[in-house]
Amino acid sequence: MPAGKPRNAFYAQSGGVTAVINASACGVIETCRKHKNRIGKVYAGRHGIVGALTEDLIDTSKESAATIRALRHTPAGAFGSARYKLKKFEDNPAQYERLIEVFKAHDIGYFFYNGGGDSADTCLKVSQLSERLGLPIQAIHVPKTVDNDLPITDTCPGFGSVAKYVAVSIREAGYDVASMAKTSTKVFIMEVMGRHAGWIAAAGGLAAERDGESPHIILFPEIAFDEDAFCARVKNAVEKYGYCAVVVSEGVKNQDGKFLSDAGLRDAFGHAQLGGVAPVIAQLVKAKLNFKYHWAVADYLQRAARHIASKVDVEQAYATGKAAVELALKGHNSVMPTIVRVSDKPYKWKIGIAKLEDVANREKMLPRDFITPDGFHITAKARRYLSPLIRGEDYPPYKDGLPQYVCLKNVAVKKKLDSSFAI
Amino acid sequence: MPAGKPRNAFYAQSGGVTAVINASACGVIETCRKHKNRIGKVYAGRHGIVGALTEDLIDTSKESAATIRALRHTPAGAFGSARYKLKKFEDNPAQYERLIEVFKAHDIGYFFYNGGGDSADTCLKVSQLSERLGLPIQAIHVPKTVDNDLPITDTCPGFGSVAKYVAVSIREAGYDVASMAKTSTKVFIMEVMGRHAGWIAAAGGLAAERDGESPHIILFPEIAFDEDAFCARVKNAVEKYGYCAVVVSEGVKNQDGKFLSDAGLRDAFGHAQLGGVAPVIAQLVKAKLNFKYHWAVADYLQRAARHIASKVDVEQAYATGKAAVELALKGHNSVMPTIVRVSDKPYKWKIGIAKLEDVANREKMLPRDFITPDGFHITAKARRYLSPLIRGEDYPPYKDGLPQYVCLKNVAVKKKLDSSFAI
Repeated sequence: MPAGKPRNAFYAQSGGVTAVINASACGVIETCRKHKNRIGKVYAGRHGIVGALTEDLIDTSKESAATIRALRHTPAGAFGSARYKLKKFEDNPAQYERLIEVFKAHDIGYFFYNGGGDSADTCLKVSQLSERLGLPIQAIHVPKTVDNDLPITDTCPGFGSVAKYVAVSIREAGYDVASMAKTSTKVFIMEVMGRHAGWIAAAGGLAAERDGESPHIILFPEIAFDEDAFCARVKNAVEKYGYCAVVVSEGVKNQDGKFLSDAGLRDAFGHAQLGGVAPVIAQLVKAKLNFKYHWAVADYLQRAARHIASKVDVEQAYATGKAAVELALKGHNSVMPTIVRVSDKPYKWKIGIAKLEDVANREKMLPRDFITPDGFHITAKARRYLSPLIRGEDYPPYKDGLPQYVCLKNVAVKKKLDSSFAI
Repeated sequence: MPAGKPRNAFYAQSGGVTAVINASACGVIETCRKHKNRIGKVYAGRHGIVGALTEDLIDTSKESAATIRALRHTPAGAFGSARYKLKKFEDNPAQYERLIEVFKAHDIGYFFYNGGGDSADTCLKVSQLSERLGLPIQAIHVPKTVDNDLPITDTCPGFGSVAKYVAVSIREAGYDVASMAKTSTKVFIMEVMGRHAGWIAAAGGLAAERDGESPHIILFPEIAFDEDAFCARVKNAVEKYGYCAVVVSEGVKNQDGKFLSDAGLRDAFGHAQLGGVAPVIAQLVKAKLNFKYHWAVADYLQRAARHIASKVDVEQAYATGKAAVELALKGHNSVMPTIVRVSDKPYKWKIGIAKLEDVANREKMLPRDFITPDGFHITAKARRYLSPLIRGEDYPPYKDGLPQYVCLKNVAVKKKLDSSFAI
């Protein structure tokens, strides 16, 4: 590429959003703005890759420095995200050709894609394709997922803040139930995200620092649900501590591998009621043990809870965004900046680098030795890994009692192509 | 009572706990400790009034000043609360005689009862009875309820913090859904507490400061659920803003006055599934509009969320605890300190006083003119009332990423009575 001719960057958010994905966006945009000799404008995809396919680009240069800075403390996806997985090149070459067409039209030389495993795969494909089609694009993936399931990187930006929310919430709810248990609720069940892996559920375990503290039981998707063992454990906790607090992953399955959340609830017409494993567990506690229960389903609240974000997570989200740009400027392509853990105590980390071909389509599972042998709690090893990730508070500014999150203008870039593209 | 002979105080927590009831306890105990010439020890009831009936008293003098100070930032009931309503005197005089017997044995001269409407009634009865039985006890009620339904007082300690949690959470979830709506979830439903009145649901409305902001719809227990009108409104929001965020009170009823949460869900055995109006609404959105949905049930998380407590609420909780002691020292009996609103802008308040006979068994309902004529949102008048109550943040201290809530030693006072009492 000719030196001295800055080319534009494309940035997009992909998949489920987090409390800190905008901090990564902030890192990308602020760093690009510091290198105007190398990078022209940063165009964001409106609704992620869909914006690229439909040539619906957002001109981030229309946003002030203060607005971009405020992205650091604003949850969710400021440009819109998308659950949209590109087909295989062989199955739908038109999709890829369209992407390249749009990128050519807007002189995109850098492709920063902020997402999880699927988007790492898309990022890899764009990189390979641009090479094949002779368009020099540097494709860098910026890691993001509350599921914490990307390989190589020690953790994924977004996870630490969900982890903190879950640990704080189950601690608080534990205090609540402990006070009420004598004459009222004895069992509290909190459902958390994690359909395939128990990372988020495991984080709840951090709240229990001493014997008897909430949560008393964690139900992981990795451990087939054993009704009798569970009930015995609930009974034991109530007898020993007066109450029982349970964190349950939405992905918990029964012995036949079926999601418990699908197991039995019917609406008035007999249709399966989807979602909500917490009420299923609660019903079981009632039926088998006759304890008064309460249950909560945190759902999006947990991943949007920027008000209680982990400072470490915010810093790592920003740092990976920043590093993505710096890697591109150093000439890297088809890579992802990673978090490398240097030490546990004191917790130290630095930015590393992974090849996208080693990242895409590989899931990092919760190690079995993070779960106690009985399957109901986390081990000291898990605690050592998880604890640093929730450290520090990074409060957003408030006005009149409410957090002041930023709303971008999201001004559209003038289209250059006549053609449209159906999504 | 003979001057110069300090008598002991009894303090107990009653009913559902809150994020700030311990701040009231802190106010009571710290203020008592400042008046050792008038008040001896503060004995707390273990599990509220149950502790008084069973002579299970906690000696709060065993706790350090630092520990008592930490109650101010600790959620839930540090001495245990109870859902235990005393019978009418005529129906169960033995209960009252037992209370007086325990109070006599421990030289209780002050009765501070921290709770909602039911406990105000108990407090009144204790006061009347002690007069009748010739035991000079000053009974002062300390207001507490997330339901905000006590009369006379402008607001109830505990409510402001739930209100803040709900407003912050629905704002954050709104940002989340807005980012995802193009290709994924379009409707988000968050269920909040308030079985009889819509105060908490109304507080969610504070998050929507400008047109189109979350929440777009609030479902109140005061407004019979109109399926068609609701669906039309959801459809409209999705068309206009791309998504729809809904706050629904657990107490929403259908046109026949039946709780929606009871309306139809069955477990595998055909038993009614209790709790959870959010999934019922979600199912409706799916069936009638075919929008992808997510739902959350905040349950205890909302009332335990000390991490996002309202500063105004914490201050009022402490102030009413302090005022209760000061009123007793001034010779008052059968009263409750209240919050008096002096002005909205700037928000100013002071402590007032109400007679318990005017407080007990009277519920303050959400005024109809706090709800918009269409029944789906709050009015400017509601906003003027609610907004000051969520103002300010009062963060607890953190260690290793987790809030440091205090656990008391809760040392039992040596029993003086031979008799036991069955609860």
